[in-house]
Amino acid sequence: MPDDIDARVRRSFSQQTLMRTLGAEVLAVRPGEVEIVLPFAEHILQQHGFVHAAAVAAIADNACGYAALTTMPPDTAVLTVEFKTNLLSPAKGERMRAIGRVVRAGRNLIITAADVFADTGGASKQVALMTATMMVVKGDTGLKD
Amino acid sequence: MPDDIDARVRRSFSQQTLMRTLGAEVLAVRPGEVEIVLPFAEHILQQHGFVHAAAVAAIADNACGYAALTTMPPDTAVLTVEFKTNLLSPAKGERMRAIGRVVRAGRNLIITAADVFADTGGASKQVALMTATMMVVKGDTGLKD
Amino acid sequence: MPDDIDARVRRSFSQQTLMRTLGAEVLAVRPGEVEIVLPFAEHILQQHGFVHAAAVAAIADNACGYAALTTMPPDTAVLTVEFKTNLLSPAKGERMRAIGRVVRAGRNLIITAADVFADTGGASKQVALMTATMMVVKGDTGLKD
Amino acid sequence: MPDDIDARVRRSFSQQTLMRTLGAEVLAVRPGEVEIVLPFAEHILQQHGFVHAAAVAAIADNACGYAALTTMPPDTAVLTVEFKTNLLSPAKGERMRAIGRVVRAGRNLIITAADVFADTGGASKQVALMTATMMVVKGDTGLKD
Repeated sequence: MPDDIDARVRRSFSQQTLMRTLGAEVLAVRPGEVEIVLPFAEHILQQHGFVHAAAVAAIADNACGYAALTTMPPDTAVLTVEFKTNLLSPAKGERMRAIGRVVRAGRNLIITAADVFADTGGASKQVALMTATMMVVKGDTGLKD
Repeated sequence: MPDDIDARVRRSFSQQTLMRTLGAEVLAVRPGEVEIVLPFAEHILQQHGFVHAAAVAAIADNACGYAALTTMPPDTAVLTVEFKTNLLSPAKGERMRAIGRVVRAGRNLIITAADVFADTGGASKQVALMTATMMVVKGDTGLKD
Repeated sequence: MPDDIDARVRRSFSQQTLMRTLGAEVLAVRPGEVEIVLPFAEHILQQHGFVHAAAVAAIADNACGYAALTTMPPDTAVLTVEFKTNLLSPAKGERMRAIGRVVRAGRNLIITAADVFADTGGASKQVALMTATMMVVKGDTGLKD
Repeated sequence: MPDDIDARVRRSFSQQTLMRTLGAEVLAVRPGEVEIVLPFAEHILQQHGFVHAAAVAAIADNACGYAALTTMPPDTAVLTVEFKTNLLSPAKGERMRAIGRVVRAGRNLIITAADVFADTGGASKQVALMTATMMVVKGDTGLKD
């Protein structure tokens, strides 16, 4: 079962061309929790040289969405209804790491939250906070995962 | 004056490597309002083939941030404090277009909002809604625009 | 039809004991738009003597929820999934007035937004901004309006 | 020091007439964390008989704001910049209990979060989630706590 969840998340993630474009990768998949990393890179910055808030939000949104997907029936797909991000500190460090988790899983809506950390050497500093609502889309829409 | 504002926004935008990576461009700069477009492209999608919510949020966040910058003194820089995005419809179309505007400009904080539309042929459909708080960062921090 | 909508909103509103406690009233009901007022009063303040942000949010949330209800089938009920409020200025004035409107009405979720104004004499100043997601709850849950 | 913090929070809270109107009370004050309770009562409900989302948000907002205040210099006041609430379950139970905590304390802005639980007998169920931005207002504005 955890194997299936892991494969489902990684397969769907690999179909997100934006993640490849940014350079993000799935670090860990657990039931109700997904961790995604984004190494610092020159092509994802804002005007002051920090990682762009939208790139931080991208991995937080995905960590939330895939955390939700780990709790969803096989013939369903996940869509983001809304997300809100608070940016706590400039996003600088060797990599950004988002941990998304399910806070409440309903039949149609799944409420999630994520923390994003900047990792540098052995140290971690939280740089962002997200809460997000995910929708469970039934398979008869043609959407998958 | 409007020329200066236009130049300031475009120069700062051109330093955001993420915008180049996504393919986004500044369409219009007006006092308190900025419009940014993102053509549909294969490298910015989520798993179902729609433009990724984070790419939509990226141009909305920038439209908000630069709308705020048009109201800010020359020796200041803009940083995003927080943003929230509601996704209204799957983001598909020839291009995404975000219009950001200042709702209230305070001395330290500027409250902004953005609407994002999917343009296809002559038709436009709203796909997202953002509200965002921007911070006015004083020049002595070394940050600019 | 507009009569039915008006009656439906006012009947449901009258069952909200919190609105009576605060002193709020429905000012206008239009398809997809509802206006609610809250007169300044000594029992709804925060520590500095302004109307409490939560009282402002209360009428904004209700204006959004009832704007959504005007677009919903008769045998359904509305529940708030989430809301976000930006507070633009201290809430002082003779009355607070929230205008909620539907931005996108889906089958299961309705995305809404509200502006809240402080009215004093003939002048109005915007004091808050809300975006909110409303859920369409089917009648077989026993919930109504 | 903790005594001072406790007194400062309780004194400011006691000046919020809305809290008295709702029936809310401060349960605990710790550095960076404040707990507020709201007993179920007939005068704070929405149309289906649940505690109104705005009443839930009221204690969450206050728990966040006072958590922020515990970290602020004596001659300052706290104002809410924005808050977002996700409602996880209908708010029913003997009392609602909000725990607010500081996530990041900056000089001018303090980012906070709160969880709200419905307590019934010995059991607790989370009913809401908030993230909020608080502003540190300097004393020369005439505002206090």
